[in-house]
Amino acid sequence: MVSQEMYKLGSKKSTIRTIFEYGRMRAKIVGEENIYDFSLGNPNVPTPKFITDELINILKNEEPCSIHGYTVAPGDPEARELLAKSINRRFETNFSGNNLFMTAGAAAAISICFKALSEENDEFITFAPYFPEYKCFVEATGAKLTVIPAQLEDFQINFPEFLKKINKNTKAVIVNSPNNPSGAVYSEETIIKLADILREKEKEYNHPIFIISDEPYREIAYNNVKVPYITKYYKNTLVCYSYSKSFSLAGERIGYIVVPNEVDDFHMVYGAIAGASRILTHVNAPSLFQKAVGRCAGIPSDISIYEKNKELLYNGLIEAGFKCNKPEGAFYLFPKALEDDDIAFCEKAKKYDLLLVPGSDFGCPGYFRASYCIKTSTIEKSIPLFKKLAEEYNKLL
Amino acid sequence: MVSQEMYKLGSKKSTIRTIFEYGRMRAKIVGEENIYDFSLGNPNVPTPKFITDELINILKNEEPCSIHGYTVAPGDPEARELLAKSINRRFETNFSGNNLFMTAGAAAAISICFKALSEENDEFITFAPYFPEYKCFVEATGAKLTVIPAQLEDFQINFPEFLKKINKNTKAVIVNSPNNPSGAVYSEETIIKLADILREKEKEYNHPIFIISDEPYREIAYNNVKVPYITKYYKNTLVCYSYSKSFSLAGERIGYIVVPNEVDDFHMVYGAIAGASRILTHVNAPSLFQKAVGRCAGIPSDISIYEKNKELLYNGLIEAGFKCNKPEGAFYLFPKALEDDDIAFCEKAKKYDLLLVPGSDFGCPGYFRASYCIKTSTIEKSIPLFKKLAEEYNKLL
Repeated sequence: MVSQEMYKLGSKKSTIRTIFEYGRMRAKIVGEENIYDFSLGNPNVPTPKFITDELINILKNEEPCSIHGYTVAPGDPEARELLAKSINRRFETNFSGNNLFMTAGAAAAISICFKALSEENDEFITFAPYFPEYKCFVEATGAKLTVIPAQLEDFQINFPEFLKKINKNTKAVIVNSPNNPSGAVYSEETIIKLADILREKEKEYNHPIFIISDEPYREIAYNNVKVPYITKYYKNTLVCYSYSKSFSLAGERIGYIVVPNEVDDFHMVYGAIAGASRILTHVNAPSLFQKAVGRCAGIPSDISIYEKNKELLYNGLIEAGFKCNKPEGAFYLFPKALEDDDIAFCEKAKKYDLLLVPGSDFGCPGYFRASYCIKTSTIEKSIPLFKKLAEEYNKLL
Repeated sequence: MVSQEMYKLGSKKSTIRTIFEYGRMRAKIVGEENIYDFSLGNPNVPTPKFITDELINILKNEEPCSIHGYTVAPGDPEARELLAKSINRRFETNFSGNNLFMTAGAAAAISICFKALSEENDEFITFAPYFPEYKCFVEATGAKLTVIPAQLEDFQINFPEFLKKINKNTKAVIVNSPNNPSGAVYSEETIIKLADILREKEKEYNHPIFIISDEPYREIAYNNVKVPYITKYYKNTLVCYSYSKSFSLAGERIGYIVVPNEVDDFHMVYGAIAGASRILTHVNAPSLFQKAVGRCAGIPSDISIYEKNKELLYNGLIEAGFKCNKPEGAFYLFPKALEDDDIAFCEKAKKYDLLLVPGSDFGCPGYFRASYCIKTSTIEKSIPLFKKLAEEYNKLL
């Protein structure tokens, strides 16, 4: 009577959702201040004042029909032009507004790319640890998602495994850097190596292989680490960007796809993106926010709270005896669990009301994700509990 | 190299788009004031001041993380509660916030319903004249759209043809009243008859058959005509609403689906709707606008401009010799073309820079659509041209 597939997708709660709801339930029992919920990736840095000011400015001074009316499907031409200029200024690229397609955030952007590119028997490759929604978005197009196991030392790309899996059906490779959940930033060396392999494979298989760069965390990178702009290394790159994290606009659903002129058959790719956006019923990206992000493009976000939280949580966990790569970006820590079974470990952590997400959820068992986009005071208070949890494991040794 | 289906959907311009772009091109030659573009359904009544004021109020006084953060997938609980109360007040229904699922406008709402309900071999039925996007949205789910020919005398439902086409594979019937493009409002008699037939067929086929009520024009109805709230006549009804037209927020993509408690297996239907929304990558409806429409729900829109434009255009066309049903709602006139070939007729109208959409585009050849959500002065100046066009046809007789 309804689609069983849709019912399953809609009624089966994600692990993260289940943990979050458990937290809400526990908060009622032990009090909000005694719950240490590291499960969600909802930014806690307020939307910058320059965005609020610009929104009010537009609402007060512009003509309502032009603020709130339909835009053309690819998005407001002025906003796209401003965004292209901002990208060019920051990354020494050479885009125009015609290279951008505005979307309802990054979930829409990546799905539109999957849907636009996907043909029969196609495969998409991604690297663990990876964002779990990739799987259902790719499979919804009829294609297959292949996950390359993580390179555990540094969470860069596991090239030997990648070379085993890439094949003539590979349509695209999904890259997410700064990475959710590992916090790793792919180095220039990694990107160059990936690009070299793909160019070789394009020749071998005689068809384009795309990189889909999912990069909502681009601006959340620490210590001036370089986050390579991938179109400069590899022409068949589609960049998917969102203002969910950098401007804390997650609920507003605003982002874009960059389609460089240099991609093989720009006209076909851009046309298919427009078709996919239409069939996914994104008539146009929300119009007021198109204007606002266009005008605020490139204004740096204040990531000092994340930086502070990261140091605090990282140092606390290391002190408690956890093993963890120091993140270079995003707002997650991805430490090794204290037993092989990360699901059992996260269950045990609940005893201290520490709510953590098992790495298995991201295709990387044996680890766990802790979001530090939460209150600094929550992190401070959680450290002794992480220590107690670690002690409990030490006793078992 | 890309999906040919998506490329076609994205690169083949719609008739309306083609006409619109022709108008832009002609405007450069003959001047904006000499183009009479009746092609688009983009509201020209400004967004009401109470919406602008509420948006500014929220932005100035509320906490940015709670304005712009993710909402739960079904939408902000407070907004849903307010919307449910407003529906209950106006239509004597009995919904709570749990019966609502917020969506990115009506295109998303109807597509989510199609995707949620669609199983193998399913058919959806709609009544000409109809919104052409229904076809690609329904077909994208793998189902088939069956179009019942128009009942030309009054654009109510052609029941004899409907009875010929309904069959055991019919999953749902799509109803759009006030109708785009005919301007007809389905009478209570029509709705009662439709409900009676569907209840009988549900028994005969032993499965539910849904009504999907696509009603973005609900509030744009003239002379206090009653627009029946269909859930009160038929329990398996899903209502798809949008603020695109009533509050002129077309670009902001905000609306909702109502799922009554009474539908067969509410839990399954609501769950499948959540799954379909997820897979169509509508993470949540835009959050700021969820709040704003919730708080402004039920405030009447000023439709006096549409009313005035309707009278002007209708009277002008009747005087010029056109045959046309007087619309009871929406902002379109759907007159009979002056020759059988509506496409040729619309081509001929271009000579006078009258830009009209052929009825064939809506599954109703021999007619044309003229949107009157344009400047009153444009309509005034167009009447003599419609008269000249009619005279040209009179000479041929």
